[in-house]
Amino acid sequence: MSSFADPGAWACPLPLRDYPSVVIGHGGGGKLTAELIAHLFAPAFGLADHALGDAAIVELAGGRLAIATDSFVVRPLFFPGGSIGELAVNGTTNDLAMMGAKPVYLTASFIIEEGLSMDALAAVVGRMAQAAQRANVRVIAGDTKVVERGHGDGVFINTTGVGVVPLGVDLGPQRVRPGDAVLISGAIGNHGMAIMSVREGLQFEADILSDTAPLYDLVAALIEAGGGALHALRDPTRGGLAAVLNEVAAAAGVCIRVDERAVPVDATVQAACEMLGLDPFYVANEGKLVAFVAAERAGDVLARMRAHPLGQRAAIIGQVLAQPAGVVTVQTAIGGTRILPMPLGEQLPRIC
Amino acid sequence: MSSFADPGAWACPLPLRDYPSVVIGHGGGGKLTAELIAHLFAPAFGLADHALGDAAIVELAGGRLAIATDSFVVRPLFFPGGSIGELAVNGTTNDLAMMGAKPVYLTASFIIEEGLSMDALAAVVGRMAQAAQRANVRVIAGDTKVVERGHGDGVFINTTGVGVVPLGVDLGPQRVRPGDAVLISGAIGNHGMAIMSVREGLQFEADILSDTAPLYDLVAALIEAGGGALHALRDPTRGGLAAVLNEVAAAAGVCIRVDERAVPVDATVQAACEMLGLDPFYVANEGKLVAFVAAERAGDVLARMRAHPLGQRAAIIGQVLAQPAGVVTVQTAIGGTRILPMPLGEQLPRIC
Repeated sequence: MSSFADPGAWACPLPLRDYPSVVIGHGGGGKLTAELIAHLFAPAFGLADHALGDAAIVELAGGRLAIATDSFVVRPLFFPGGSIGELAVNGTTNDLAMMGAKPVYLTASFIIEEGLSMDALAAVVGRMAQAAQRANVRVIAGDTKVVERGHGDGVFINTTGVGVVPLGVDLGPQRVRPGDAVLISGAIGNHGMAIMSVREGLQFEADILSDTAPLYDLVAALIEAGGGALHALRDPTRGGLAAVLNEVAAAAGVCIRVDERAVPVDATVQAACEMLGLDPFYVANEGKLVAFVAAERAGDVLARMRAHPLGQRAAIIGQVLAQPAGVVTVQTAIGGTRILPMPLGEQLPRIC
Repeated sequence: MSSFADPGAWACPLPLRDYPSVVIGHGGGGKLTAELIAHLFAPAFGLADHALGDAAIVELAGGRLAIATDSFVVRPLFFPGGSIGELAVNGTTNDLAMMGAKPVYLTASFIIEEGLSMDALAAVVGRMAQAAQRANVRVIAGDTKVVERGHGDGVFINTTGVGVVPLGVDLGPQRVRPGDAVLISGAIGNHGMAIMSVREGLQFEADILSDTAPLYDLVAALIEAGGGALHALRDPTRGGLAAVLNEVAAAAGVCIRVDERAVPVDATVQAACEMLGLDPFYVANEGKLVAFVAAERAGDVLARMRAHPLGQRAAIIGQVLAQPAGVVTVQTAIGGTRILPMPLGEQLPRIC
């Protein structure tokens, strides 16, 4: 863990020094909780008054708000390319972004296992704060609970985000139509395989890094480029590309046909999947999106994706057909066709 | 657990029958997660389209919104007078109410330990749904994660609430002034001692029940009765009455003097506290509030409290003084004065 944690940026302040690791009392709502907030959470999240209360009042212009919630239980806490901290910010703000909403506020709630080292907690919180800055959201309220050793696992984090849906933006699977092109913003499977590589202690020629990233900036560019022709967005996290394509096919009552050769997969990810007997279509991503776009504007949207740092390897990977409704099919590299079913569970538990 | 769970109201529907308990795949974001949502969460929360997505779009009139987040790790899951389900709704909506905000929306995120019985989960969710109805809030988005046996503890629940602060309402410790009266809405210590009695297997003459309840209706009445003379509200949960009085004394830079004889405590709670060597001032409540009111309106506010079903035993328990700033003192029953310090941690871990 230590090689990824980089706690060097954080020097344990005086009132926390008596506690090299988290004790039950840090979750008790008394002095110890207040010290944790004042000396760790509040400075990390840039809260001037050294307070991160369990509630906050904010001003919003009204209209349509998007609200998203997600709990993060990834294991291990630190992995190549990220940590639970980045996931907790990017995962929730990306859920907002997929609805076309600009993320504005975030709450952060921690369930900590007694005994977690204070350095590890500080490193997680530091990563969250950096990710929040990058995603341009403010952490405005939080909560801390501590459970006894053996009743948790390091730290679980819930984040809930509030975003604003700009006037005229209306994205969702109900708008997907036969004829739409299906685009992906980049190579698939990197996040899940990054987690697996550390969990299984695998060595590859090159490190596989998680792709965790905040997607709203890319989404804003696509909304501008696609206008009303941009019908729906999804981020293929748990269950991978296969899960989101099946969700959209079912919700829109359409068939989605994917060309396997068109789907970008890094060679190292492909090799790692083959070694472990995994299908990259089912492996989680944390910084990719799938876009459904009316065919006549697909080229424009693709060009805009490729011009963005997070979409350089974007591709059109398939199209929407009328029949058979609710089904996802894949044209394989050797010319056959197979059905890509909804996964039952997740082949890689606790990847987010 | 079974005597409190009352799973009788819920008959396990067909697609979940193969799973008498939660398996890892229920948190995988695939078919099993979808089944859990369609057959358990969505019907419980009255969502017509059998979907409880991780995000939702809502319409709000704008202005000042309050946002509150809280994670619940109470042990055991069911206890006399309530369960983690009621706490998860009342705890978060009460945090909104203490800011004078009317709770409107709630998100619900579950971290479930593999092996939790489906009946217990259904009972918890059913209790949440009833509590949401009583608190008049809508659950609009959710998330489900499952962790391996021994890495969690039954179920942890995060709820995040969004509320609207009515025009002209401005509550907070910064408005507390020397001369203010301090009111409590009822007897203290019931929630914490209800938890302790089941955890320690204690028997008293009468059962001690948790006081978990939604407080916004009472708050609205107090705002009406007190107007601008109602300065601040707090619900004395973790850390009890002592913690909130110390928080307000510190934040407002005032002294708070409490008359011990004026603080209502049930005889059974008092006896249980004495048996366990606990001070009721530090025991958690989940359905009480402390109000700071300008002296000239304290009588009106007290009368209004007592007229409300949740405030029948309300009392004026003390007053705000200028000095010594940041200190809470108690006039004891035998005429002495003691300092009531901020608790370091929580004498009863995992009571919410």
